[in-house]
Amino acid sequence: MNVDGAPFRTIWLADDGETVEIIDQTRLPHAFVILRLETLDHAARAIRDMEVRGAPLIGATAAYGVALAMAANTSDDALDHACEILAGTRPTAVNLRWALDDMRGVLTPLDPGPRRDAAYRRAAEICDQDVAINRAIGKNGLGLIQDVWQRTGKTVNLLTHCNAGWLATVDWGTATAPIYMAHDDGIPVHVWVDETRPRNQGAALTAWELGQHGVDHTVIVDNAGGHLMQKGKVDLLITGTDRTTAAGDVCNKIGTYLKALAAHDNGVPFYVGLPGPTIDWTLSDGRDIPIEQRDTSEVTEISGLSGDGRMHTVALTPEASNAANYAFDVTPARLVTGLITERGVAPASRDGLLGLYPERRD
Amino acid sequence: MNVDGAPFRTIWLADDGETVEIIDQTRLPHAFVILRLETLDHAARAIRDMEVRGAPLIGATAAYGVALAMAANTSDDALDHACEILAGTRPTAVNLRWALDDMRGVLTPLDPGPRRDAAYRRAAEICDQDVAINRAIGKNGLGLIQDVWQRTGKTVNLLTHCNAGWLATVDWGTATAPIYMAHDDGIPVHVWVDETRPRNQGAALTAWELGQHGVDHTVIVDNAGGHLMQKGKVDLLITGTDRTTAAGDVCNKIGTYLKALAAHDNGVPFYVGLPGPTIDWTLSDGRDIPIEQRDTSEVTEISGLSGDGRMHTVALTPEASNAANYAFDVTPARLVTGLITERGVAPASRDGLLGLYPERRD
Repeated sequence: MNVDGAPFRTIWLADDGETVEIIDQTRLPHAFVILRLETLDHAARAIRDMEVRGAPLIGATAAYGVALAMAANTSDDALDHACEILAGTRPTAVNLRWALDDMRGVLTPLDPGPRRDAAYRRAAEICDQDVAINRAIGKNGLGLIQDVWQRTGKTVNLLTHCNAGWLATVDWGTATAPIYMAHDDGIPVHVWVDETRPRNQGAALTAWELGQHGVDHTVIVDNAGGHLMQKGKVDLLITGTDRTTAAGDVCNKIGTYLKALAAHDNGVPFYVGLPGPTIDWTLSDGRDIPIEQRDTSEVTEISGLSGDGRMHTVALTPEASNAANYAFDVTPARLVTGLITERGVAPASRDGLLGLYPERRD
Repeated sequence: MNVDGAPFRTIWLADDGETVEIIDQTRLPHAFVILRLETLDHAARAIRDMEVRGAPLIGATAAYGVALAMAANTSDDALDHACEILAGTRPTAVNLRWALDDMRGVLTPLDPGPRRDAAYRRAAEICDQDVAINRAIGKNGLGLIQDVWQRTGKTVNLLTHCNAGWLATVDWGTATAPIYMAHDDGIPVHVWVDETRPRNQGAALTAWELGQHGVDHTVIVDNAGGHLMQKGKVDLLITGTDRTTAAGDVCNKIGTYLKALAAHDNGVPFYVGLPGPTIDWTLSDGRDIPIEQRDTSEVTEISGLSGDGRMHTVALTPEASNAANYAFDVTPARLVTGLITERGVAPASRDGLLGLYPERRD
């Protein structure tokens, strides 16, 4: 997508053909800073310190981290070491492990000689695959937005929660791909952006990336979406998902369930964009998903840009008060209108998903 | 309720019998500062700058503002001037207007001579009436908490949104009165406190007042309540209301509707505490209530205590992004289990309310 009029991905090979560049997402939305990753350790730090985040982008960065390691040393030991270091950066990230397994599978059978070039080639392929999947999600979701536009002839109002945008992937995003595609096709769209407490990825990242690409949008507090739906100001809800069960339950950023309830109560369709490979076919009931609790300082404190141009962290709660910080919630399939995947749009049910992924039938 | 072990109201006559003292709520939760109101202008400033807030407390402060004016000058002109100044501080506050009409009604028929003492007496009565109403709400709501405790034998988990606590009234609060009464009766209670973006009255005020009175509580982001209800961690939802229709629709702080939906979806009872006199008998359908939009800086910026011990305001959103700030939403009566008033607990319906207020039947 565009940044200040120029197309960008979230990760790319630098002009020297060896180092890798990323957007430092910890600086957004207040500063656009490009970081150069020159070594394995740089890549590991980028993942660990959340300079990159979002499952697909973490996987892509890990793949390039292996390539950077191979640029220095192509021995078996160096490959093992790189995978170990990178796997430890975000222990629970499924895509991270998947990308490392993929790189190891490609590189291990090779002699050390061709490993460097093969690693860069494979990392680039992993990035391109992610872009292709997201583009397909965008094409499949585009019809939903076109339908509203053709029916109403008015700006299509969408609402999204958290950031399942191009910043979370290599390009396009999952939830945002249909929105960018509609915008690029000339369909007038407007996005209500939930700020998404506690980490504010909506206010900081989704608002920034939509703005940079020229998509009309309005930031709202997470409390506001229900009222907007009651007032007919939302045509379509689209979010991403961190984990999707075989029955179509959606585990996504905390608060998604509340928006899904409001969508259901007001007859607003609620769609979820996701790459098919992220469906967890071993899991049927979303209630079985353990919900991570994160550091409570994300609730009791917040960071932002101060008048002096520097970032400040301020306390929001009484010193003596406890806080709790549940990271995700589960929206049951009955509240999900459909799942937008790279293969098409399916009802949120086992049968619906098997219709798109028949190879998963036993 | 208690502050650091000593009983406090939110407004009281100072030892000199003339000046009035309040808690500066703009300094909470990070500092407990008592302000002395010595003149009409002090009282007007306290309301305008939100050193006091909450409908009942605004009314009480306006009443004492008239008394302070009378302490300086008991002429008809001074009375008119005081009411005019005070009415202009928060033009949409219904309680403010009601308190001023009440004071004018009491003072106008009197000669200037006894006006000063009559004004102080009436202001004190207005405060005591508020306390009596809230205490009655507490007694009537207490049974709901007792029932859960007797059934489960475990700590009763409540969830509340925004601040309808003693800080919003003269004492006890509306939503919180049953909670304080249960706590004082030795029933183990724990309160999930929605931070309540954008103004964070939950994180700043409700958490503070519960903590000062010794009530166990946990601050959460507004996104978290649905998940907590799915997991059976909430026994009872209690909020206040800014405006209640004759049919039991509840207009309250933005986001209340989302919590009511989650309560309904999970079989959690949702009660609303309110003084009967605040019911708007002229209004049946909550959808007819116009929803105030406040300054968007409340969404795009936030203030908190910085490491240097001073308050800082920080920006949360991209400079180029728009924001919207809807202050309230309407929860339809079908999602409200009951209304807790000073006369008892009624179903949220016209018949339910008329059962408690039969004098309102035409």
